[in-house]
Amino acid sequence: MNFELTKEQSMVQKVVREFADEIIRPRAQEIDKEARFPADIFKQMGDLGLLGIPFPEKYGGSGGGTLSYALAVEEIGRVCGSTGLSYAAAVSLGASPIYYFGSEEQKQTFLVPMAQGKTLGAFGLTEPNAGSDAGGTKTTAVVEGENYLINGEKCFITNAGYSEQVIVTAVTGKDRKGKKTISSIIVPSDTAGIQITSNYDKMGVRGSDTAQIILENVSVSQKNLLGQPDQGFSQFLKTLDGGRISIGALGLGIAQASLDKSLAYAKEREQFGSNISNFQSIQFKLADMAMEIELARNMVYKAAWLKDKEKDFSKEAAFAKLYATETAFRAANQAVQIHGGYGYMREYEVERYLRDAKLLEIGEGTSEIQRLVIARHLGC
Amino acid sequence: MNFELTKEQSMVQKVVREFADEIIRPRAQEIDKEARFPADIFKQMGDLGLLGIPFPEKYGGSGGGTLSYALAVEEIGRVCGSTGLSYAAAVSLGASPIYYFGSEEQKQTFLVPMAQGKTLGAFGLTEPNAGSDAGGTKTTAVVEGENYLINGEKCFITNAGYSEQVIVTAVTGKDRKGKKTISSIIVPSDTAGIQITSNYDKMGVRGSDTAQIILENVSVSQKNLLGQPDQGFSQFLKTLDGGRISIGALGLGIAQASLDKSLAYAKEREQFGSNISNFQSIQFKLADMAMEIELARNMVYKAAWLKDKEKDFSKEAAFAKLYATETAFRAANQAVQIHGGYGYMREYEVERYLRDAKLLEIGEGTSEIQRLVIARHLGC
Amino acid sequence: MNFELTKEQSMVQKVVREFADEIIRPRAQEIDKEARFPADIFKQMGDLGLLGIPFPEKYGGSGGGTLSYALAVEEIGRVCGSTGLSYAAAVSLGASPIYYFGSEEQKQTFLVPMAQGKTLGAFGLTEPNAGSDAGGTKTTAVVEGENYLINGEKCFITNAGYSEQVIVTAVTGKDRKGKKTISSIIVPSDTAGIQITSNYDKMGVRGSDTAQIILENVSVSQKNLLGQPDQGFSQFLKTLDGGRISIGALGLGIAQASLDKSLAYAKEREQFGSNISNFQSIQFKLADMAMEIELARNMVYKAAWLKDKEKDFSKEAAFAKLYATETAFRAANQAVQIHGGYGYMREYEVERYLRDAKLLEIGEGTSEIQRLVIARHLGC
Amino acid sequence: MNFELTKEQSMVQKVVREFADEIIRPRAQEIDKEARFPADIFKQMGDLGLLGIPFPEKYGGSGGGTLSYALAVEEIGRVCGSTGLSYAAAVSLGASPIYYFGSEEQKQTFLVPMAQGKTLGAFGLTEPNAGSDAGGTKTTAVVEGENYLINGEKCFITNAGYSEQVIVTAVTGKDRKGKKTISSIIVPSDTAGIQITSNYDKMGVRGSDTAQIILENVSVSQKNLLGQPDQGFSQFLKTLDGGRISIGALGLGIAQASLDKSLAYAKEREQFGSNISNFQSIQFKLADMAMEIELARNMVYKAAWLKDKEKDFSKEAAFAKLYATETAFRAANQAVQIHGGYGYMREYEVERYLRDAKLLEIGEGTSEIQRLVIARHLGC
Repeated sequence: MNFELTKEQSMVQKVVREFADEIIRPRAQEIDKEARFPADIFKQMGDLGLLGIPFPEKYGGSGGGTLSYALAVEEIGRVCGSTGLSYAAAVSLGASPIYYFGSEEQKQTFLVPMAQGKTLGAFGLTEPNAGSDAGGTKTTAVVEGENYLINGEKCFITNAGYSEQVIVTAVTGKDRKGKKTISSIIVPSDTAGIQITSNYDKMGVRGSDTAQIILENVSVSQKNLLGQPDQGFSQFLKTLDGGRISIGALGLGIAQASLDKSLAYAKEREQFGSNISNFQSIQFKLADMAMEIELARNMVYKAAWLKDKEKDFSKEAAFAKLYATETAFRAANQAVQIHGGYGYMREYEVERYLRDAKLLEIGEGTSEIQRLVIARHLGC
Repeated sequence: MNFELTKEQSMVQKVVREFADEIIRPRAQEIDKEARFPADIFKQMGDLGLLGIPFPEKYGGSGGGTLSYALAVEEIGRVCGSTGLSYAAAVSLGASPIYYFGSEEQKQTFLVPMAQGKTLGAFGLTEPNAGSDAGGTKTTAVVEGENYLINGEKCFITNAGYSEQVIVTAVTGKDRKGKKTISSIIVPSDTAGIQITSNYDKMGVRGSDTAQIILENVSVSQKNLLGQPDQGFSQFLKTLDGGRISIGALGLGIAQASLDKSLAYAKEREQFGSNISNFQSIQFKLADMAMEIELARNMVYKAAWLKDKEKDFSKEAAFAKLYATETAFRAANQAVQIHGGYGYMREYEVERYLRDAKLLEIGEGTSEIQRLVIARHLGC
Repeated sequence: MNFELTKEQSMVQKVVREFADEIIRPRAQEIDKEARFPADIFKQMGDLGLLGIPFPEKYGGSGGGTLSYALAVEEIGRVCGSTGLSYAAAVSLGASPIYYFGSEEQKQTFLVPMAQGKTLGAFGLTEPNAGSDAGGTKTTAVVEGENYLINGEKCFITNAGYSEQVIVTAVTGKDRKGKKTISSIIVPSDTAGIQITSNYDKMGVRGSDTAQIILENVSVSQKNLLGQPDQGFSQFLKTLDGGRISIGALGLGIAQASLDKSLAYAKEREQFGSNISNFQSIQFKLADMAMEIELARNMVYKAAWLKDKEKDFSKEAAFAKLYATETAFRAANQAVQIHGGYGYMREYEVERYLRDAKLLEIGEGTSEIQRLVIARHLGC
Repeated sequence: MNFELTKEQSMVQKVVREFADEIIRPRAQEIDKEARFPADIFKQMGDLGLLGIPFPEKYGGSGGGTLSYALAVEEIGRVCGSTGLSYAAAVSLGASPIYYFGSEEQKQTFLVPMAQGKTLGAFGLTEPNAGSDAGGTKTTAVVEGENYLINGEKCFITNAGYSEQVIVTAVTGKDRKGKKTISSIIVPSDTAGIQITSNYDKMGVRGSDTAQIILENVSVSQKNLLGQPDQGFSQFLKTLDGGRISIGALGLGIAQASLDKSLAYAKEREQFGSNISNFQSIQFKLADMAMEIELARNMVYKAAWLKDKEKDFSKEAAFAKLYATETAFRAANQAVQIHGGYGYMREYEVERYLRDAKLLEIGEGTSEIQRLVIARHLGC
């Protein structure tokens, strides 16, 4: 066993931490307040190579692997949940499916510019009546000549409003048991019939883009089919497995920020003639936060390591997502509590952590879905 | 024993519920979004007699008692945390101290118009370095002729921006052990030297007014002293004891709203081919919410009943505040979770419940302070 | 509303408390250690009229009602979980079904001597494959002439080893949908073919009797049918509803004992140069225990009051059982923790509270079953 | 990073697992029931080399390191908490202090036979009024000629009744600030004036030996001083740091056993016409157990790895102890709950896990002490 980061990983961590502290941190409050996707920051992240960390060099990436990528998400999440979520979704949901399942041509066309930070992609899975229940998918893709004709509605799609293309899941047939089968199709955002609107008024991660997509007779070439037909179900499961590691890493960042702020505040805030860091009730909160963060970090890194080693990581990714995001919510909640009245004010930032953290318990499979995933891995 | 409301109490409950549903509910989202104190609604509440519920008729009230008042807070809290908090603070913090400790003249001058809903009052206790730690109070009131000359700074004062007068606690001397003693002084808001600014950008209860007060050489008549000099400490303890019941009632309202919305949603939302109300994981959440609300309700009503019976109620008020507000936060959090992605959108309201509920765990003594209060009652 | 006990109720509380402190307390450790049913104490409880509290005078009781009975269970539970459980089962499971559903003759024959403390009864519901799932009942009762011929096996039956008769549930037919219907039959313990063995080696409540019952061709008169045929299902639901209040009361007693012992210990135990009651970590535990006990008490008393008023109380009984027993387990666990190494020693008694409390979360419907019951009341 | 065990570590794990399953498992219930230290099993463990795993070959060990040792504790804990605790105490408390601080001669005399499993040692730290508060130590060691004369009383000393020698902490002086200083002295158990009695009647880990030690004018050579004089405080802190990893590993074993039993039971137990493993409420419990065990395992192994790498591990050891033992208690509690009535019976073993797990939250620093240790590492 070895719990140390490699030099390369430490370097990624250091570079992203500095970038986050210098470039993103001063903008984090404004990004939340104005609820606007920080396109300029994303451009700089692209220039720095962050969008390509887990992809091979031949596809525009740096071959850093999942663990390096998780470190980057964590560092960005530490200063800005909105930017962190946008980043995690861009890599795990926008680009990764094409890396996993795309043809060489699709990789050159779509993955390379995303990995280089020149374009952005999104993953159009969720529908009004189909969250983690893909069986409820109503969007359809019907073969018409050399094209697919797609109709349907997608909701809660991160980054879609700023994406050059969206991978859309759609019903394309039935299997032998009569169950719907699903395919994934890459749909350029400027295709006729697509309407993408970013009108959601969210509790938190307000600077991330969340869009609704309406597809009316959208016609795209069959060449845009991702992988084999009718494989959409297993494709999105694999995509979500990977995405969960990054959401866990994002939780880690928010939790760490919550602890850092709380520790600093507790050591300087005086009540009853003493720094509140001397009170056992505060000490116990801080100790639990620190412990949970350590546990979450080991778990996120282990899941990433398993993925990099091409071992089974689905259960561990669910552990990482579930625990790290619940840790983030608890830590942010305690951070607000420790800050008292000040913690309730936007200026002190910890209330933003709480609002942002709440999303992580919902997106890419709620905590409840994670528990079901784990139970299935236990043979239930 | 008898766990039934009297006819009068049921009537108050019914009237306020209807008012809340008809007048406040349609405005609740706007009040949060625009972060503006709903002065017009408050006027109607005054006309309806809500501001005078717990005060005797001779002081402009209806003699309904604490329990009726708690019922009113609960019903308003069920539809709008901001209005509920403003209301609870107006009665418990703005008006009650004058009812408890004021001279007959002060009651006629200040209490009567407040009970009639014609004016609003506030309670200026908290300072940047003195939350529940009154020993840290730095505001001073020095006798100068027939007046007090007051200097200092107050923060997080609910309703102060809309109040005709503020009760200000200030150091006026030392006791025999050399410890600061505090007095409460009624300061009209238009006195020269007072500066009241409502600039806080809060996480929730955004439609309630929260103000900072700066007092520079503010001169008010000694006639404005509330009760005896140097009694400020015991006065504000009693005031907070009473206030805690109303904050508990507010928590009750938010918790009930969280359950109501969640139940309705769970019974109509379908996932995996079934209403989600059929899933044990959802059922268990709903069952716990319902149980906790019932427990909180019994506790809040019992504390109110004790106060009305003029029995000791300080410990029970702390129980009520602590449990009902933590219940509100848990219930609102589960409501968001049950609503999934929709719960994270402002339109669905439950995220507002969560933001509003968080304040209740902090204001009028944090949950941690309640636990210390209880421990003291246990003889620790 | 009125949260005060009546004089009669206070009197019952006082009498039972004294009896418990004087007669049962000195025996509690021995009862646990020797794992023997305290028949002599039960006799004294009978003489004192405790077994008849909730039954009318004409059936040998004192007409004290459910609330007085709950107070009695609580007081006994405070000193000895084993005796408390035996008592609660004797009244709620052994005697109550005959009071609710029995014919006048059955009441005179069976209820009167039980209420007078001369005999003991038990309720044979659970089977190896049918806990709260009565649909799984395999015991059958077949009409044979004027008798029922009963075959089957019952497990975990409290008091059965010391009972003069056992009410046995058995399948007697099918309803129109083809679902098994169940009847309740009073089976004298000395009937040929019954075998009752008390061999369970339990974690706690070791002084209560828990028996297995094997019925092989047991023949009892049809006159022993309780109420109407095929009504067993609704009968045992009502029986369990009532029983839950008493299990809640028992939890209340154990929780209160846990707090009492912990407070006393914390105020005398010194560590780091101070009584540990001065440490916030201990104070917070004690405060939470006290709060939860107050909440549980209000709930148990309210459920009892509702039953006495002949209002619906099923949901409230589930609340009371669920919350009071989970409170008991948490409180006992914290009591052990506060006592440190000493708490782990049998001599200090709190570890017995923990072992006893664990049963309460399982018996008469597990905590999970309570949550399902509540969810059903919510319309899920 | 690398989360895989080495071949050697896997081999230790495999060997101990087989030994535990074959030799200890069949005896576990009897060991608990008869509350007798399993000396014969310990002899076999000694023959197998388990007592020497973390010590170098030259001191009779196998140089397997802390991680291998933790794996061994975990595997033994999985089948028998009593044997696991005895083992952990023998190595971490009895032998390790001599390895850390002893002279070469002391190592040859005392450590070698312990590492070879020929003798047993104990660590006499705790006193009636000095748990984790060493400042409260009252035992004294006064220099008298070439000897120390020791007087005092020790309590809760694991293995002392079966040990050839006990390391006793005693006040030997004062530092410049007037605070007591403590030294550690190796006291052979057959020295005149020592009285060791194992009369504790414990809730769980009943097969482990727990003794009281009374020292009356016990005279031992100054050669038996461990390390330098007045270093007892830092010595026992280091000893406890190491011991915490092993207690964490023991918690891991009990938690894993709880999950294993629960999973097996849930997959075969039927209720309401279905295996209970199909119910979400059961699945969620199992998922949480599995997740917490994975988190605890990573943490215990990481702390062991840090110790083996001679890096700081004190905070991580506290994390490991705190989390793994609280996980064990929660898992064992859920195991009882999932087993329902059967879980409450000794025959089904899970209730023993719960009783055993409770000790782990108390011994070698309660959970509360761990939180204080962590807070100190955070700079509070």
